[in-house]
Amino acid sequence: MALPTHGANPHYLYEALGMDMPLSYVDFSANINPLGPPSSLQEHWSRLFNSIIHYPDPHAVELTKLLAYKEQLPEHSILVGNGGAEMITLVARLLTGKKVLIIQPAFAEYAESCYAAGCDVSFYQLQEPNWELHIESLRPYLQKSDAVFLCTPNNPTGISFAEESVRELIMECEQANCMVVIDEAFYDFTEDSFTYAPLLAQYQHVMILRSLTKIFAIPGLRLGYLLADAEMIQQLKPYKPHWSVNAIALEAGKLCLTEEIYVEKTRAYIHEQKQKLFSFFEEYKFDVSDSSINFYLLKDSKVKDSTAMLKFLLSRGIIPRHTYNFPGLDGRWLRFAIKSKRDNEVLMEGLREWRKQHSTL
Amino acid sequence: MALPTHGANPHYLYEALGMDMPLSYVDFSANINPLGPPSSLQEHWSRLFNSIIHYPDPHAVELTKLLAYKEQLPEHSILVGNGGAEMITLVARLLTGKKVLIIQPAFAEYAESCYAAGCDVSFYQLQEPNWELHIESLRPYLQKSDAVFLCTPNNPTGISFAEESVRELIMECEQANCMVVIDEAFYDFTEDSFTYAPLLAQYQHVMILRSLTKIFAIPGLRLGYLLADAEMIQQLKPYKPHWSVNAIALEAGKLCLTEEIYVEKTRAYIHEQKQKLFSFFEEYKFDVSDSSINFYLLKDSKVKDSTAMLKFLLSRGIIPRHTYNFPGLDGRWLRFAIKSKRDNEVLMEGLREWRKQHSTL
Repeated sequence: MALPTHGANPHYLYEALGMDMPLSYVDFSANINPLGPPSSLQEHWSRLFNSIIHYPDPHAVELTKLLAYKEQLPEHSILVGNGGAEMITLVARLLTGKKVLIIQPAFAEYAESCYAAGCDVSFYQLQEPNWELHIESLRPYLQKSDAVFLCTPNNPTGISFAEESVRELIMECEQANCMVVIDEAFYDFTEDSFTYAPLLAQYQHVMILRSLTKIFAIPGLRLGYLLADAEMIQQLKPYKPHWSVNAIALEAGKLCLTEEIYVEKTRAYIHEQKQKLFSFFEEYKFDVSDSSINFYLLKDSKVKDSTAMLKFLLSRGIIPRHTYNFPGLDGRWLRFAIKSKRDNEVLMEGLREWRKQHSTL
Repeated sequence: MALPTHGANPHYLYEALGMDMPLSYVDFSANINPLGPPSSLQEHWSRLFNSIIHYPDPHAVELTKLLAYKEQLPEHSILVGNGGAEMITLVARLLTGKKVLIIQPAFAEYAESCYAAGCDVSFYQLQEPNWELHIESLRPYLQKSDAVFLCTPNNPTGISFAEESVRELIMECEQANCMVVIDEAFYDFTEDSFTYAPLLAQYQHVMILRSLTKIFAIPGLRLGYLLADAEMIQQLKPYKPHWSVNAIALEAGKLCLTEEIYVEKTRAYIHEQKQKLFSFFEEYKFDVSDSSINFYLLKDSKVKDSTAMLKFLLSRGIIPRHTYNFPGLDGRWLRFAIKSKRDNEVLMEGLREWRKQHSTL
């Protein structure tokens, strides 16, 4: 069963499973803001047409300035890119031939890009049910690695690792001369927008990946950035195709960065929806990950493999993200984005039906 | 003098020369369609907003199908990318550590991407005034190369190399086991849209680069593609960041591919404008390259270095592309795009003024 390696574009999932895609469906497999893009984007959309006629600024000077202000970091510590995926590709390329450790479960793209770059990739598997980071057992692996990828808040679990553990990891890596790549693609969704970015001032071996496509619901535009030591940014730049960030993304990014209230509103909405969903899951005896953000893992603890549940939901037009290509999850869990009130109700209704048919309690 | 390595974004050029940029200017440094984007793009623009909310199709299936039909090639011979620049980066990465020959003068990005990929880069310099391709003198270099880059119609000269010479080059390379990368980014602007794409069926060692951003005046969106042997495409794919082509570019590409009449109209317009311009250049004794497309090189044969003319025009808000970073041109020529009737008249007026002040005839 060759399932797609990412969420979104759900017709690929139906195709791979040999199922017909219903006309009406709700896609829970893409982790984007359920409120959609900020209204300012729609308001300025017709003006943005003029941007398509000109080459984009290859240095993204204006957006970089705004990001520097937001992050309270110097401009030369920021590299704007064509979505988080491009940043991962650039970092992997810098690590060509190096020993890379990926703390699993994690976004599939780290391994894919590192393999493509000819890195010597190994995995460190965190354990269910809480996937906690224990530096003691991780330490021997760090000492043998040139770089380590950590996704926090984590994709796919949605869990934010304990701050103390991540700080320990960073300190260990600094001593071991090992680069720590922290993917904070979903940090905006946490209640306090906690970030490790301030540690850049203190440590040379930290890189932070960010995305603007999730929180502002603009995955079609592609926009992300990387925070790192200025010297590291200089090393990454030559690998970047000229004009890799399109002009609409640059303009949209500038508009989005003024949308602080919108981000607050998003957090409150997700918090409220999550409470409803998680009460339901408790009542109906589904296991869920202790997510701090806008998606979570779910499984029916009475069922060993989630394939039957995946197909059950897909046949009803409810599209989860499978977890077959997350080492350590191996399809036992399904990942769901927190979506609109109405969509989340559709999901609860589907799971209620599943429980009715598969009640082994 | 650290001048920008590409046209467009003219404020970088003024900055580098320490000149103030006038409020009103005409940018002749970006080689895009003077008629602007086809009107269908403007008409569908508000609908395209919906594309930003979803992840783009990472396999660009629909656009690839349309391109396969247009090119009369199988879909697996086509790779859609984030502008021609991304395709060049991918090809360069495939050539990591290999011996690469770049036939000069040519688009600066080949050398930059090949250097970044750690290729062993060398240049073969064609000679003025016609920059003709003579296979006899090129042959010994091909035999020592793993790949050769040829830009035809050529950027920056605008000249289409003689078909017979290019065919000889391809045959030589096939025998020498040397990859020929033919950049046809501007082929749509030639009178007969001549292309070497049909040779893909016959030769294994040919790759063709294409761009949709020039002919459809959408450089802000980023869209290009590569035509090659299916096996070669498979080798390139893992280097490509996931979702590297944004959703607006994919949608715009589908619309643009139906615009055949628009392309015809563009060619006729450029032909007409070029005749006017070239008559003027003859009358006022400027040297120009024998361009087959929408831009050309120009110099004042009485002046050794074009810096004075570059500054003269810039101060009047007429923005040429300097040629300092084209080996073999070394700043002696200036490149101009053919723009609207009105813009071209502004250029002629500026050059008339230059001739008046610098008449050494």
